[in-house]
Amino acid sequence: MKKLINNPADVLAESLRGVALAHPELSVDFENSVITRATPKDAGKVAVVSGGGSGHEPLHGGYVGVGMLDAAVAGEVFTSPTPDRVHAATKAVDRGAGVLHIVKNYTGDVLNFEMAAELAEMEGIEVGTVIVDDDVAVQDSLYTAGRRGVGLTVLLEKLVGAAAEEGQDLASIVELAKRINGQGRSMGMALTSCTVPAAGKPTFDLPEDQMEIGIGIHGEPGRHREPLAPAAEIARQLVDPILADLDAAGPAIVMLNGMGGSPLIELYLMYGEVVPLLEKAGVQIARNLVGDYITSLDMAGCSLTVLKADDELLRLWDAPVSTPGLRWGA
Amino acid sequence: MKKLINNPADVLAESLRGVALAHPELSVDFENSVITRATPKDAGKVAVVSGGGSGHEPLHGGYVGVGMLDAAVAGEVFTSPTPDRVHAATKAVDRGAGVLHIVKNYTGDVLNFEMAAELAEMEGIEVGTVIVDDDVAVQDSLYTAGRRGVGLTVLLEKLVGAAAEEGQDLASIVELAKRINGQGRSMGMALTSCTVPAAGKPTFDLPEDQMEIGIGIHGEPGRHREPLAPAAEIARQLVDPILADLDAAGPAIVMLNGMGGSPLIELYLMYGEVVPLLEKAGVQIARNLVGDYITSLDMAGCSLTVLKADDELLRLWDAPVSTPGLRWGA
Repeated sequence: MKKLINNPADVLAESLRGVALAHPELSVDFENSVITRATPKDAGKVAVVSGGGSGHEPLHGGYVGVGMLDAAVAGEVFTSPTPDRVHAATKAVDRGAGVLHIVKNYTGDVLNFEMAAELAEMEGIEVGTVIVDDDVAVQDSLYTAGRRGVGLTVLLEKLVGAAAEEGQDLASIVELAKRINGQGRSMGMALTSCTVPAAGKPTFDLPEDQMEIGIGIHGEPGRHREPLAPAAEIARQLVDPILADLDAAGPAIVMLNGMGGSPLIELYLMYGEVVPLLEKAGVQIARNLVGDYITSLDMAGCSLTVLKADDELLRLWDAPVSTPGLRWGA
Repeated sequence: MKKLINNPADVLAESLRGVALAHPELSVDFENSVITRATPKDAGKVAVVSGGGSGHEPLHGGYVGVGMLDAAVAGEVFTSPTPDRVHAATKAVDRGAGVLHIVKNYTGDVLNFEMAAELAEMEGIEVGTVIVDDDVAVQDSLYTAGRRGVGLTVLLEKLVGAAAEEGQDLASIVELAKRINGQGRSMGMALTSCTVPAAGKPTFDLPEDQMEIGIGIHGEPGRHREPLAPAAEIARQLVDPILADLDAAGPAIVMLNGMGGSPLIELYLMYGEVVPLLEKAGVQIARNLVGDYITSLDMAGCSLTVLKADDELLRLWDAPVSTPGLRWGA
């Protein structure tokens, strides 16, 4: 295993130390592995909390800041944060108007956020929850009942964060979040495995001439393996399952995301392959992201996310955001 | 070779297609592989042009935009762009106040930019040049006489871009650029080789238990190889040679840069290791960047850049910038 680390057991804590040093605008609660804004939002506004296992950076900690999240709860690599930590984050950022939990659909995350919501509600904090399950690759998986939550989480955190910043109430924000989840889909693929520091070796073997289609963000199995193909063919294998599941004609926000180990020159090349296929199906790409936004450690590969977007979603998308991972208009 | 590409010969052109599709605020001249702003800056302002071999993305194309570059000339992967292309870029963005060429110190780049400057000057375009040679790792290298130009290029492009945007004249901007080059240093290391698409295999072999200290951004040799070490020891091997070469006490802008294949969680961990070492030497980190800013395709590893910064440089740093790779305050 070749990694820029010390003891594998200390990766999360030591990485959070770097985050705290790099970003004075954020505050890190090391005891709970929770990242919050150093300056809380105004009282009376809904707070937005997300979290999950680490190893997907910049998700989630890199999306804490004005216009996006109020707190991110970081579990160990690929491991759900415990309920008490999610609860600590929820308490820390509640400004009296309730808290939205954004939860990727993995069994551990769903259970732990649910318990944390119960703990918070016993203390009088209103909690709303959205479960993100946008991955069209597989129904049920190694860590999931139903579909997995992947790339759409990034777009949802941005949009819902904007709605919270402008003062929408919790019920409206929950409804917005569920609507976004209903009209976004993702599909991913891998050229290589990732290596979890504590394991010390690749999660799975993928021969030099093979790729895996429909991979998740933890190295869990996808749909199938097949011989390595050119980018144009890979693009088809990402676009087709999304379009088979979503009538995507019309305006959309599209993300071509890197899994962590694929260089940007390849991600732009893939974006160039994906766009004509989407446009042929009537998708009008109104906004886009190309880069590493939700990763799987050092895995090489990419994913595609398509979110149908009306004027209201585009307005929220364009609202100012100021986080380490996404920043504009501020 | 596992890459998200079609024909290796088409990587640059197809990647530029993706850049054009993703960024309507940029304009791509496919014939010359030149990226410019879609909306030129005001007449009477100095234009800033950089470029070099591709494979270092987001450098340079990702730094074209308001507050930074006016044009980036993209050579094939790890190959200098030809003089006629640099000339085309220079002509395209000149607004009557002259053009600054920012050139990383590689023999091919230096020669080709020099020829392009002569061509432009024959047409009455005034050209100033700064050669960036910040890499303390080696004196002379596979592609270089003298020191190589690496991470400092990113910071210099930001600072000089800000000075050009506010209307400073060419002589002042050349002087500023040379001053920045004189007070910045970088040092890099690699855990793995990179793989150039046209070669189809890793540029060098680095055994599973070895790392290379002082690596360049093209897989050219560094100072030495040694057994894989913990992040704390790697940090010392980056910081010490920089401090041996630069009296860095006082305010500074610091960049912990990823080589392309190392995930962000590791880069933050490395940043956490580097900061205490710098602070112990009296460096006051006034601003920082942590992430992939100047890469070497899919190489795993990182580099450290330290730039001594007075109030004037910090003011230019904080000026608005709006590019795909760096964006704030705009």
